[in-house]
Amino acid sequence: MEVLNVSLADRSYPILIGAGLLRDSAQLAKLISARDVLLLSNSVVAPLYAAAVHAALPDRRVIDVVLPDGEAHKTLNTVERILDVLVANRFGRDACVVALGGGVVGDIAGFAAACYQRGVDFVQLPTTLLAQVDSSVGGKTGVNHIGGKNLIGAFHQPRAVIADTDALATLPDRELRAGLAEVIKYGLITDAAFFAWLESNIGRLLARDSAALSYAIHRCCEIKADFVRRDERELADRALLNFGHTFGHAIESASGYRTWLHGEAVAAGMYLAAITSHRAGWLAASDLTRVRDLLLRSGLPVAAREISGVDVMNGMRMDKKVQAGQVRLVLLKRIGQAVLSSDYPDSALQATLKEGFEAGH
Amino acid sequence: MEVLNVSLADRSYPILIGAGLLRDSAQLAKLISARDVLLLSNSVVAPLYAAAVHAALPDRRVIDVVLPDGEAHKTLNTVERILDVLVANRFGRDACVVALGGGVVGDIAGFAAACYQRGVDFVQLPTTLLAQVDSSVGGKTGVNHIGGKNLIGAFHQPRAVIADTDALATLPDRELRAGLAEVIKYGLITDAAFFAWLESNIGRLLARDSAALSYAIHRCCEIKADFVRRDERELADRALLNFGHTFGHAIESASGYRTWLHGEAVAAGMYLAAITSHRAGWLAASDLTRVRDLLLRSGLPVAAREISGVDVMNGMRMDKKVQAGQVRLVLLKRIGQAVLSSDYPDSALQATLKEGFEAGH
Repeated sequence: MEVLNVSLADRSYPILIGAGLLRDSAQLAKLISARDVLLLSNSVVAPLYAAAVHAALPDRRVIDVVLPDGEAHKTLNTVERILDVLVANRFGRDACVVALGGGVVGDIAGFAAACYQRGVDFVQLPTTLLAQVDSSVGGKTGVNHIGGKNLIGAFHQPRAVIADTDALATLPDRELRAGLAEVIKYGLITDAAFFAWLESNIGRLLARDSAALSYAIHRCCEIKADFVRRDERELADRALLNFGHTFGHAIESASGYRTWLHGEAVAAGMYLAAITSHRAGWLAASDLTRVRDLLLRSGLPVAAREISGVDVMNGMRMDKKVQAGQVRLVLLKRIGQAVLSSDYPDSALQATLKEGFEAGH
Repeated sequence: MEVLNVSLADRSYPILIGAGLLRDSAQLAKLISARDVLLLSNSVVAPLYAAAVHAALPDRRVIDVVLPDGEAHKTLNTVERILDVLVANRFGRDACVVALGGGVVGDIAGFAAACYQRGVDFVQLPTTLLAQVDSSVGGKTGVNHIGGKNLIGAFHQPRAVIADTDALATLPDRELRAGLAEVIKYGLITDAAFFAWLESNIGRLLARDSAALSYAIHRCCEIKADFVRRDERELADRALLNFGHTFGHAIESASGYRTWLHGEAVAAGMYLAAITSHRAGWLAASDLTRVRDLLLRSGLPVAAREISGVDVMNGMRMDKKVQAGQVRLVLLKRIGQAVLSSDYPDSALQATLKEGFEAGH
């Protein structure tokens, strides 16, 4: 087991990474210290791992809420349902919400915990690669609005993140690949050596080699924890973690959060941002090819041609990264160095929209 | 004009108190600095003061949302409606939500601002005495749940509070008295000299003497700002500001937030907490009489006999001040000194429930 610490003064918390952590009852009971626990999961993950959480907390009141699977349920209505359960069970301020599942479950659980009685504890038990390397760390919580992704939410840090790498054994291939998109992101934005390691080890990761997965998860969490420590509320360089997400959110929104997994949309979004970076004169052609090759070898999409470029442009204007009406994009100076910029030629963006999406209206 | 500062590091903000501040366009334009503004008000206050806010911001995009009047609308549904308006108008992270009205408008506006894009700015323009002395300061935002008051919410500090004492001229008598309940609260919990000043000056306050009101508002905001600075998230002594509120919230909840004003429920709640304090052997009989007399002279209720004591007990168990199943109450050691305690004889609480409420089931 490896332990990382996210340093945020009185809201600091540990990230535990290792094999078999969901079966470690003593560890779970220690990090989930509340008497009253709401265990949020979904219909895919609950049958696999909820029993282990219950077994670790025999002397507590643990109420289960099991959501249907999928991003389509990441809505304010679902949060309202969870708040109703918390109230109906008379949970107090000292209750804890535990998220057992992927990024959707974690985002919903965290936002419900943030809103209930103006904030109760929550603990993340991420079971997907995407959640383990990205969404469970950093305190961004929230739900989607019909007008855009994550438009409603809060910054609310978990008390602990417990990432059991064994849980990845049951992950569908498609979700594993979607998680790799976020792994690749960390290399692209800040760590060229890690990107090169991924180029050499993508086969091991796709084959779920335990040591390779553990190394990648640990490195991603290190990078993310460092960004979060420097800029908890995304007022500055934490925004670089959104590389690929402006295009990606627009893809998810335009497709109603139903057909694309988040990581898939981010993969396509990263390649489109890389193209824009190249057209803006920053990213070398050879590096653009490396980005494309690694995404394709990971089984990830690099375009979204069934989606209208006009819809994507509208979606991007609604994105949280718009300030004073101007679309700011995270772009690449080179592999391992991202910048947040609105200082790119509009022609570069327009050409990318034509290349990546369905043309016309 | 007087200016107080709530000191909270990077979230510090000014409270401006004075006559005619809503007509001071330059001041409003300076403190509401956003390009995109959502102005939340209600059907009573908007016709009186919304035009002044618009006049101060001629070069901005100001979208009005006017709610029906009353606590019954302080729900998650109302917040959802506001979020829909923010999204529909494509407001960005740099938008500002302005609350023009009483405590209900401020609580809703603050929570919507807290949730939109994980937090946008908001500014409080309180127009009731209760909001000017209490709810607009300190960053507690939220809405009611059918199971209890303010069960859903967030801590989200305003960027500024602008309290125009002229607005109190149009306040109905009943609301003025309800606000006086919170004014009296500050004296009771922490400032015996201020309580004595209120005993001498209650007639001037009821007659809306401008100097007396300004003094009282200023002193209340000073006390509150000091509590908030020491304990922003109510982990310790900020809870003393809830004096009277545990009983009061139960009264409001049992009556469906329709017949009692918040300040009226707090007044009855304070007297019931004072009785409990006396029965616990703390508050002297002569002080209990002083509390009762000042509340009655202010035209405020000291009991709620149409409400079932059993319902109130159930409501109190749901209150946020319950920890580990035990009802903690803010009680008085003496006038000017409150304590948060669960160390009182249960017989004192039970006798109070019998005296203050309808007996039986």
